[in-house]
Amino acid sequence: MPLIVRKAEPVLKIVFLNPNSLAMFKKSIPILVVSALVCNISFGQKQDSIQLKKISDEIMLHGKAYSWLDYLSNRIGARLSGSPQAAAAVEYTHQLMDSIGADTVYLQPCMVPRWRRGDKETAKILTNNAGEFAVNICALGGSIGTPQGGITAEVVEVSSYDELKKIGLTGGVKGKIVFYNVPFDPTFVNTFDSYERTFDYRWSGASQAAKYGAVGTVLRSLASGINDYPHTGVMQYNDSVKIKLPACAISTQGAELLSKLLKNDPKLRFHFEMGCYTMPDVQSYNVVAELKGTEHPEEIIDVGGHLDSWDLAQGSNDDGAGIVQSLEVLRTFRAMGIKPKRTIRVIMFMNEENGGRGGKKYAEEAKRKGEKHIVAMESDAGGETPLGFGIDGTDAQRAAILRWKGLLLPYGLYDFMGTDGGSDIEKLKDQGTLLLGLNPDSQRYFDTHHTPIDTFDRINKRELELGAASMTMMLYLVSQYGIK
Amino acid sequence: MPLIVRKAEPVLKIVFLNPNSLAMFKKSIPILVVSALVCNISFGQKQDSIQLKKISDEIMLHGKAYSWLDYLSNRIGARLSGSPQAAAAVEYTHQLMDSIGADTVYLQPCMVPRWRRGDKETAKILTNNAGEFAVNICALGGSIGTPQGGITAEVVEVSSYDELKKIGLTGGVKGKIVFYNVPFDPTFVNTFDSYERTFDYRWSGASQAAKYGAVGTVLRSLASGINDYPHTGVMQYNDSVKIKLPACAISTQGAELLSKLLKNDPKLRFHFEMGCYTMPDVQSYNVVAELKGTEHPEEIIDVGGHLDSWDLAQGSNDDGAGIVQSLEVLRTFRAMGIKPKRTIRVIMFMNEENGGRGGKKYAEEAKRKGEKHIVAMESDAGGETPLGFGIDGTDAQRAAILRWKGLLLPYGLYDFMGTDGGSDIEKLKDQGTLLLGLNPDSQRYFDTHHTPIDTFDRINKRELELGAASMTMMLYLVSQYGIK
Repeated sequence: MPLIVRKAEPVLKIVFLNPNSLAMFKKSIPILVVSALVCNISFGQKQDSIQLKKISDEIMLHGKAYSWLDYLSNRIGARLSGSPQAAAAVEYTHQLMDSIGADTVYLQPCMVPRWRRGDKETAKILTNNAGEFAVNICALGGSIGTPQGGITAEVVEVSSYDELKKIGLTGGVKGKIVFYNVPFDPTFVNTFDSYERTFDYRWSGASQAAKYGAVGTVLRSLASGINDYPHTGVMQYNDSVKIKLPACAISTQGAELLSKLLKNDPKLRFHFEMGCYTMPDVQSYNVVAELKGTEHPEEIIDVGGHLDSWDLAQGSNDDGAGIVQSLEVLRTFRAMGIKPKRTIRVIMFMNEENGGRGGKKYAEEAKRKGEKHIVAMESDAGGETPLGFGIDGTDAQRAAILRWKGLLLPYGLYDFMGTDGGSDIEKLKDQGTLLLGLNPDSQRYFDTHHTPIDTFDRINKRELELGAASMTMMLYLVSQYGIK
Repeated sequence: MPLIVRKAEPVLKIVFLNPNSLAMFKKSIPILVVSALVCNISFGQKQDSIQLKKISDEIMLHGKAYSWLDYLSNRIGARLSGSPQAAAAVEYTHQLMDSIGADTVYLQPCMVPRWRRGDKETAKILTNNAGEFAVNICALGGSIGTPQGGITAEVVEVSSYDELKKIGLTGGVKGKIVFYNVPFDPTFVNTFDSYERTFDYRWSGASQAAKYGAVGTVLRSLASGINDYPHTGVMQYNDSVKIKLPACAISTQGAELLSKLLKNDPKLRFHFEMGCYTMPDVQSYNVVAELKGTEHPEEIIDVGGHLDSWDLAQGSNDDGAGIVQSLEVLRTFRAMGIKPKRTIRVIMFMNEENGGRGGKKYAEEAKRKGEKHIVAMESDAGGETPLGFGIDGTDAQRAAILRWKGLLLPYGLYDFMGTDGGSDIEKLKDQGTLLLGLNPDSQRYFDTHHTPIDTFDRINKRELELGAASMTMMLYLVSQYGIK
């Protein structure tokens, strides 16, 4: 550590210009406008700056998000849609909202799928000259199980759908297990960029392989690093492909091993058995709390995360973090006695992970009632240190948000370059709603994502609270000024 | 996790404006200059941008920092100055530099203090009505030990030197143990700001208490959160105060307990025993590698971290991270065949933690030889995600660095507001050297700082490598263009 430490940041005094908006001006706006902007940002917004500091201090000093997440993780645990724990999470957050206090608290019913992992989940590599190797796998969410006794077959390793097609068209996939071995690209600074490029092998890989006569698929886990935890996640069967294959993920360490063994022993066989299955849909709920706007109650601002999680761990980061941060927004408005000018709704969305039914239901109801949702915010990229917000909207909507960049920079919020809102709120976009997604530091996110180690002990209290503060500050500004 | 993920950042295309420099222009430079700047930054520097991407990719794809840190942490371990492990670390990094290759690799001798913790380190709270409570403490580095059998005395809790003085002047401290209970202020976004405000209680607390007749001191650990690990760190005895008191740190959890018990039982006693002691100075070394500049070999650019660590853990983050990142700078220049125009020196400084002898020696030698050090960079604020650099220099030097902000932003480097370089390089400042300090995300730093849990398993490979990439990119630019 440095003995002579850095000088303190004068939090309230720093008012910075907005590089994004200036980059836009470069293209289209005469330079004298920049001068006006400089004056505007430099001398205005002082009251807002003070209020944002109060909001941040309230959360950093008295925040409850961390202890709520402790409860959600350690007392309730994994919350797969339709599970008893998902029901407990509905009850817990409903009661929490009631105790925090809001103008309205209610459950919004929606039917959710019930996929279950079952008891059996094993795999091994059977080489022709070096014995057997047990490897860690997990079923992808939505996959069918294998027949009892499992599937054993030779393996075709591919690094792209193009390669699959090339081999498949000459009959080389028939009767075999397709092994998608597509690593994350470590050169992307943001790990979500790697995720985006590999995601479709999880999502569509089984049906793509089925087209060429494969009998099962093994996916290299969508992960940043090398370790022995397999990462689950949702997949879907393409309706146009009649045959459904069982699909699993193998840990990155297992993938490296399998690939290495295949090089010397292309005829080795892979064996896996999975007991997963799907039961009929069951009723569940979004949980909603509302603070009525004092001046424009008809303008609705949404904020939420998803209450369900995968079944392998506690879902502390995905997306327990987003849940408790959203609740913290409500608590902070109440604790500080802030009466928002526009209506704020806090929503615990159900079933983001394997169906998105809660998000769909919420948007349908909004449309049916003719509600006007001006902004929807989601936190579903982890509880790590917040760096900014993704903005999914029109240029005018983006500009409305970016006018506040200078106010948010003292809290480490500088990155507004991304365009992702969040999957629970995306259906609102058809209605013209501006979507905002909390953008935390992504470096560690895919170490634990959808694995057995997405647990409470990996959450840092300050990081979680800074995220909640970022969300609350942004929502305060939106509730005061709207999006014009 | 979001199903529909964010759009990729087109790394090479983003060229942003620099809010800091524009904020300066606001005050002093006519608005038309801004226009010129916009053009300059937008259309120039393309080649540099490509080279920086190559540097980053080299490190993210082929970096060795993580495996070197594994060795330094798990095979060598804690490296307190003058210890066998510190000597092993000298030998290890010397050999590494040789194998990486440089124009010169050498050891720079310096004498270092040899403080030792000894075997005994225990404490308990003796209440008058609720029994005894064992608590976790550790001696502060440099403290004398207690007499055999320890010290037992009543406790005076203070939250500032003002309070100490007030009580001390009326005789209330005499014969007692002073308990400095000054928590971190969680409202600072950067945790180093809290550290700065509490640091002096560790550094001078024993001598301040001795003035008023105290018999020992207990410091609330300088830490962000509440847990049961005491944080050590260096203290010094003021020469003007003749009496030396034994000084320990108590975990934050222990501090909370002690404070709570004192409220109901002000006459409770605290007992602690410490076997720490100081041995004669011993010779150790800075380890130095040099790449000679091709065009301006006389302009020297330094980069380093400190090789010594505290004795309680592996010193992986403090400052193993800075050591291996600095070595990675050397490896990357060599692997990419970059011949720097100016001379680059990589220095493993010895004895930062309890004496700073290595840094002093290095600056003395530089001065004695009449060397011209234009820039010195240190990484000693952890291996977490890099956010920018602290800049300690003149306005002109600062401006020279800030012209590259646009090139560095795609790598998440946006924060150049801090003014800390690093304690090993600070003595160079007298010679006009510009100091740069890597500025990583600070949220987790003081969870492990100087505790038994500063271990390798808490290091994230990508975060560590991004820090190394940030340093190498910045040093590449400095070596190409100098500081004008």
